[in-house]
Amino acid sequence: NKKLKVFTLNSNQSLAQEVAEHIGCELGKCTVKTFSDGEVQINIEESVRGCDVFIVQSTSNPVNDNLMELLIMVDALMRASARKINVVMPYYGYARQDRKARSREPITAKLVANLLETAGAHRVIAVDLHASQIQGFFDIPIDHLVAEPLLSEYFMGEGLKGEDLVIVSPDHGGVTRARKMADRMKAPIAIIDKRRPKPNVAEVMNIVGEVKGKTAILIDDIIDTAGTITIAADALIESGAKAVYACCTHPVLSGPAIERINNSQIKELVITNSIELPEEKKSDKITQLSIAELLSNAIIRVFEDKSVSKLFD
Amino acid sequence: NKKLKVFTLNSNQSLAQEVAEHIGCELGKCTVKTFSDGEVQINIEESVRGCDVFIVQSTSNPVNDNLMELLIMVDALMRASARKINVVMPYYGYARQDRKARSREPITAKLVANLLETAGAHRVIAVDLHASQIQGFFDIPIDHLVAEPLLSEYFMGEGLKGEDLVIVSPDHGGVTRARKMADRMKAPIAIIDKRRPKPNVAEVMNIVGEVKGKTAILIDDIIDTAGTITIAADALIESGAKAVYACCTHPVLSGPAIERINNSQIKELVITNSIELPEEKKSDKITQLSIAELLSNAIIRVFEDKSVSKLFD
Ligand SMILES: Nc1ncnc2c1ncn2[C@@H]1O[C@H](COP(=O)(O)O)[C@@H](O)[C@H]1O
Ligand SMILES: Nc1ncnc2c1ncn2[C@@H]1O[C@H](COP(=O)(O)O)[C@@H](O)[C@H]1O
Repeated sequence: NKKLKVFTLNSNQSLAQEVAEHIGCELGKCTVKTFSDGEVQINIEESVRGCDVFIVQSTSNPVNDNLMELLIMVDALMRASARKINVVMPYYGYARQDRKARSREPITAKLVANLLETAGAHRVIAVDLHASQIQGFFDIPIDHLVAEPLLSEYFMGEGLKGEDLVIVSPDHGGVTRARKMADRMKAPIAIIDKRRPKPNVAEVMNIVGEVKGKTAILIDDIIDTAGTITIAADALIESGAKAVYACCTHPVLSGPAIERINNSQIKELVITNSIELPEEKKSDKITQLSIAELLSNAIIRVFEDKSVSKLFD
Repeated sequence: NKKLKVFTLNSNQSLAQEVAEHIGCELGKCTVKTFSDGEVQINIEESVRGCDVFIVQSTSNPVNDNLMELLIMVDALMRASARKINVVMPYYGYARQDRKARSREPITAKLVANLLETAGAHRVIAVDLHASQIQGFFDIPIDHLVAEPLLSEYFMGEGLKGEDLVIVSPDHGGVTRARKMADRMKAPIAIIDKRRPKPNVAEVMNIVGEVKGKTAILIDDIIDTAGTITIAADALIESGAKAVYACCTHPVLSGPAIERINNSQIKELVITNSIELPEEKKSDKITQLSIAELLSNAIIRVFEDKSVSKLFD
């Protein structure tokens, strides 16, 4: 007797469309416009009374606009008497501002969590949060999906399975992620170990683990300006790697990213559609996989009051 | 022993600078930048521990960016152990989304109030809120300043005092504001009474009150696209007004506003600097008054735990 509705805002309409198709429903009718002065205007054009609503919206660039759209939509749904307001955030913006690294810094990832709750969100579905600890920033249930199986399966399907592989984390923070991929692909891991020997002295790139003669797959959660990943690729080739592939969940790809990737030693970069890739960022080197099925399975399980973590068994 | 600090973000730096000068302090040191992917980065560069901090920021266009800057700054100040975080909003964006005019509309003005409180604001100082009821959206103290005395005094100083004046509200919502100006200037009021006789029939402009042979001063809180105010000026001239002046607190002036004003029958438009006027919007017809003194008096009274409403006696 419960009713499921999926809405999309402006950040990720084609992914939301795919999600609705997987679920077998139409996207909810709503228009999101801006007034002449830049203020967001949202009109929900069908009843949501008593419904379990899922809003698909990434807080990707333009992050503040996408976040405000989401908050205003949650407010409107709450006032329109939706039963449950579930926020599906394929990409969670501000995730890297997750701790006070220096004095007097904000913790914007926590602020965003508080804002979502204040607006009236009942539950969040997120994908590969920059730090798993962000789950603890919420006082409402959060389901945390991971894209690593999708990425691993892609590489295995592409015939890399037979190769002499090594899965590489581009920094210390990503070792757990690399370990998971390595387990799935039955390969060893390596770590790019950046160190600054003294302040104001150039960083030294050291590779922990064996890469000589191997095909390396770099895995990260976010690729932003692509500095880290392309330098890591150089270091791997210098240390004798046969070929370098790279993958990430969230293709932020800002500033010089595309140019760097095109000019890099990376053979292929595999990303997901947690962030929509605009036409001008498309490149022969980039393969985009869809997380629509992952999200729709999670949405259906949440709607049916079933455990989402079972999806990963 | 308490310490007052004034900070500014990006929306209204010259006003904040003026406010600091009036108070006799330096602006607090902080940098507001954006990362390559558009995320806001704030660094507070001096201690605020135990201080009473006032942040001057209008949530004018780009409203979502300015609002997020403000929320992130409040978060950072809270984590940096400021004693009191006072948010000074010369212009409060989203104020016109203050009620459910249709089904399933958000009430974004209320959402913004909740977001500010969630971030950690202790008090708000606002100027000419679109509806006074917005004060009730806050569960923290709010001081509501009005710019009408400043506007009235300007017109009296310009020698309009001797004239046969009429103060005109461009719509029904603004009559109280016009009444206040009329009291101060000892003039009668008139109201532009727009009516749509039947659905899908053009609006009829009717003027309630006597304007023939008089010098009319239109007063509004916000001038956005300037449609209402320029049509009102036409109607006044048609009804025999000798000359039309206009004034408002918040010069949103979006889209065709400047062109409309320049081509209108309005002789002079008087505005305040609650919203910074970019170079390309400046016009011979527009006079901008500063609310710096008004704000600094309010800030000093709040800091000294004195009643702000006494400012208006
Ligand atoms: N949007 C962003 N772009 C670039 N750097 C960021 C961004 N947000 C946060 N940071 C910085 O990235 C660091 C956190 O990244 P990480 O060490 O990988 O968790 C912190 O020093 C932040 O100041
Ligand atoms: N930023 C905006 N620009 C233009 N119209 C708006 C804006 N925000 C709200 N509105 C509309 O303006 C009306 C409220 O204005 P008012 O009747 O003057 O209080 C409502 O119908 C709103 O939908």
